[in-house]
Amino acid sequence: MATALYQRRDFLKVLGMGLVSLGLPQFPRIVRGAQKRQPNFIIIFADDLGYGDLGVFGNPSIKTPNLDRMAMEGQKWTNFYAAASVCTPSRAGIMTGRLPIRSGMCSDESRVLFPNSLEGLPAREVTLAEALKPQGYASACIGKWHLGYQKQYLPTSNGFDYYYGIPYSNDMDRVAKGGRELFWDPKVAYWNVPLMRNEEIIERPANQHTLVKRYTRESIKFIREHKQEPFFVYLAHNMPHVPLFASDKFDDTSARGLFGDVVEEIDWGVGQILQTLKEEGLEENTLVVFTSDNGPWLTYEVQGGSAGLLKDGKGTTWEGGMREPTIFRWPGTIEPGVVTGIGSTMDLYSTFCHLADANVPDDRVMDSIDLAPALFGGKPSPRDVMFYYRGRRLYAVRKGAYKAHFITKSAYKPNLEDEFHDPPLLFNLDHDPGEHFNVAEQHPEVVAEIEQIVKEHKANLVPGRDRLARRE
Amino acid sequence: MATALYQRRDFLKVLGMGLVSLGLPQFPRIVRGAQKRQPNFIIIFADDLGYGDLGVFGNPSIKTPNLDRMAMEGQKWTNFYAAASVCTPSRAGIMTGRLPIRSGMCSDESRVLFPNSLEGLPAREVTLAEALKPQGYASACIGKWHLGYQKQYLPTSNGFDYYYGIPYSNDMDRVAKGGRELFWDPKVAYWNVPLMRNEEIIERPANQHTLVKRYTRESIKFIREHKQEPFFVYLAHNMPHVPLFASDKFDDTSARGLFGDVVEEIDWGVGQILQTLKEEGLEENTLVVFTSDNGPWLTYEVQGGSAGLLKDGKGTTWEGGMREPTIFRWPGTIEPGVVTGIGSTMDLYSTFCHLADANVPDDRVMDSIDLAPALFGGKPSPRDVMFYYRGRRLYAVRKGAYKAHFITKSAYKPNLEDEFHDPPLLFNLDHDPGEHFNVAEQHPEVVAEIEQIVKEHKANLVPGRDRLARRE
Repeated sequence: MATALYQRRDFLKVLGMGLVSLGLPQFPRIVRGAQKRQPNFIIIFADDLGYGDLGVFGNPSIKTPNLDRMAMEGQKWTNFYAAASVCTPSRAGIMTGRLPIRSGMCSDESRVLFPNSLEGLPAREVTLAEALKPQGYASACIGKWHLGYQKQYLPTSNGFDYYYGIPYSNDMDRVAKGGRELFWDPKVAYWNVPLMRNEEIIERPANQHTLVKRYTRESIKFIREHKQEPFFVYLAHNMPHVPLFASDKFDDTSARGLFGDVVEEIDWGVGQILQTLKEEGLEENTLVVFTSDNGPWLTYEVQGGSAGLLKDGKGTTWEGGMREPTIFRWPGTIEPGVVTGIGSTMDLYSTFCHLADANVPDDRVMDSIDLAPALFGGKPSPRDVMFYYRGRRLYAVRKGAYKAHFITKSAYKPNLEDEFHDPPLLFNLDHDPGEHFNVAEQHPEVVAEIEQIVKEHKANLVPGRDRLARRE
Repeated sequence: MATALYQRRDFLKVLGMGLVSLGLPQFPRIVRGAQKRQPNFIIIFADDLGYGDLGVFGNPSIKTPNLDRMAMEGQKWTNFYAAASVCTPSRAGIMTGRLPIRSGMCSDESRVLFPNSLEGLPAREVTLAEALKPQGYASACIGKWHLGYQKQYLPTSNGFDYYYGIPYSNDMDRVAKGGRELFWDPKVAYWNVPLMRNEEIIERPANQHTLVKRYTRESIKFIREHKQEPFFVYLAHNMPHVPLFASDKFDDTSARGLFGDVVEEIDWGVGQILQTLKEEGLEENTLVVFTSDNGPWLTYEVQGGSAGLLKDGKGTTWEGGMREPTIFRWPGTIEPGVVTGIGSTMDLYSTFCHLADANVPDDRVMDSIDLAPALFGGKPSPRDVMFYYRGRRLYAVRKGAYKAHFITKSAYKPNLEDEFHDPPLLFNLDHDPGEHFNVAEQHPEVVAEIEQIVKEHKANLVPGRDRLARRE
């Protein structure tokens, strides 16, 4: 069916019937050729999960049978990127289909939003939920939002019909004294994180032990209640971000320790959701995507995850910071396999809009590429370039197999300075995913090509005003 | 069936009817309770394949659909070790079920056997092929042997009915001038490696481009010819050890470059063999094991493999040197899943002997543990201890989740000295498979326990005379 949609859309384009020209002024709706219902979308988004933290991505201690099976039944994408290497900009990217530098949801002063931040995602941004809305989608944001906690910035002000979750990271609102050691044996009371339903705080501090379980149940409830209409569930777990909490059933059960308990509970939740789709007869009309917002928080040692064979982790523009373990599943529509082409969380926007016959905004620069050819057509991924921003600066660019680092910097250690590279460091990520062997000297033509890409990118870039810096 | 065998054997033990007491003097044969045929065994043994070099073990660029499926249909073992971190001692371990220090197949002077080595596996060692022989097994060694190249040391003198392969590593007998750079664009003529059938050299230099294909075909031919009797195929690919060669069909096809071409051709071969078993109706009576002899040869950069999230590679006693991507498959008998318990290539000896009702030698110390409880019974792995030798010295010991390093040393770099640790470095490998966080101070009781294990091991150890040092 996806292929049929894809072809129909191409056909419309050939006829000069651009999607925008067919639609309503703000959110044009395609005149649908067939009355077949649009597919449902579920994004299961983990927090600080590393490339190497799932069984099927090579973790030796964490058992993820549901995600492993999902990967075998679906497509495992091995070169799939978050939009940024920390929470807020990464989430801005997946929600808007745009680099966070465009919306201003990145900063050199404050890496993410905090409970005393005064702003959030600008109203003029069109979230994926807003884009799908005119096509009749019921939508829920369940879990961590982190794009602004004042009413006008919450999910319910950004196209979602329903919100249940915590508005920012689970390590914020800390009330306990002490430092990093609090994370080695965390207690709920150490953090005064609010749990919200729509615009109301319903629990504070949130009992973090049961959040994965409750998010899963809320998602299942929403799916069951909306099975007669197309739905979009954005399930953004706030785990395995430290402080780590598992429910009784999972606590102290994984060989990997608490971090493993938490990932295994997320895996359980994935299984529950896939089972629900099966029971409700929705499996063949639902695209499920699993990925994460950024790499592992290595500073927290065994309480943080692993980027597997990739370099470094959260906060950096090395591969470990932004490449995520990603799985697409849609039985009967997605051919099972492994895709080594490039993709990004930003691409979900155009991909979903295409499948829903929804409009992608045409009054702004989008960084979202419809992945349909690779997902449904067995073709190479249409994405060939990836920009790696840290804060508001471009640190690295990938073109095909090659990645050039213009600036590098480790994550989170104090007093580390930017290291500038001219010529840039160049790695062949297909041959050398761990970024060990600089091949800039052997490939000056690739360096030149990437430098040209940077030049064009910068010439056309209108950076959004920094929305993270202003705080109480 | 395996469970039935297992239970019957336990039953015999309970009756005081030890296996040895029932048998013939040298290779006792169990009086079989049922006439059911013994299972067939196939070991597919890669060379220098790293923990992170298969898709299902997390490699992003190398596609291994056959091994991925084998892992999903079978058991993926994530804590499975080679007997040593370099070729010859590792192969002595898998063939004898004993630590190479016992047979003398390790050395501080010569890490492995070379073409001018004068000795090989001592005649008194009982190879796995010899142990299975009295039970009527037809056996073939196909691929790299590396336990001595003189007639009395070859596979055909060590219990195998048939041998087809190269007698030592594919980078030996080098005739081309030059260094490491020869490995970046290898040509067959640079090495004068012999290809043998039984005791005869049939091709020299071996056309290395086609060895994976030819080994696979020889294996399939042997399987087909011996399908009426129990068989044991030890298919020891000499790839992906440098110099790397792929056949035309695979050359220049993998995103990972030549290394990927080679691993993908091995994966193709695995698929061919599994397909043969299916076609011949042998699937449900054949245990197939895939593993490797040691970790990736990191010195060769992109021409070498990756240990994934494990530390270091070939030649070292860090996890990357000895932990291998391992898969067991036996449809209908092995419950699919992931096993995080410890296993070793040495354990295949006792496991196979048990399944074949064959005798394990009782006149010598064995280091082989029957893995049946974990493979067939859903029980924890019975192996709890692993010794990490480098040459003739014990560098590290694992007990349960904990590994103590008494000596560490990097691989292959010149002039590196042993680094001694007292107290030892201690890592929790379940929590910290990458060996980053020393917890010796927090767990003195574990250090003491492992030190006691070392003491007992050394007190009972009779090292075999070094068989690798003598050269022409």
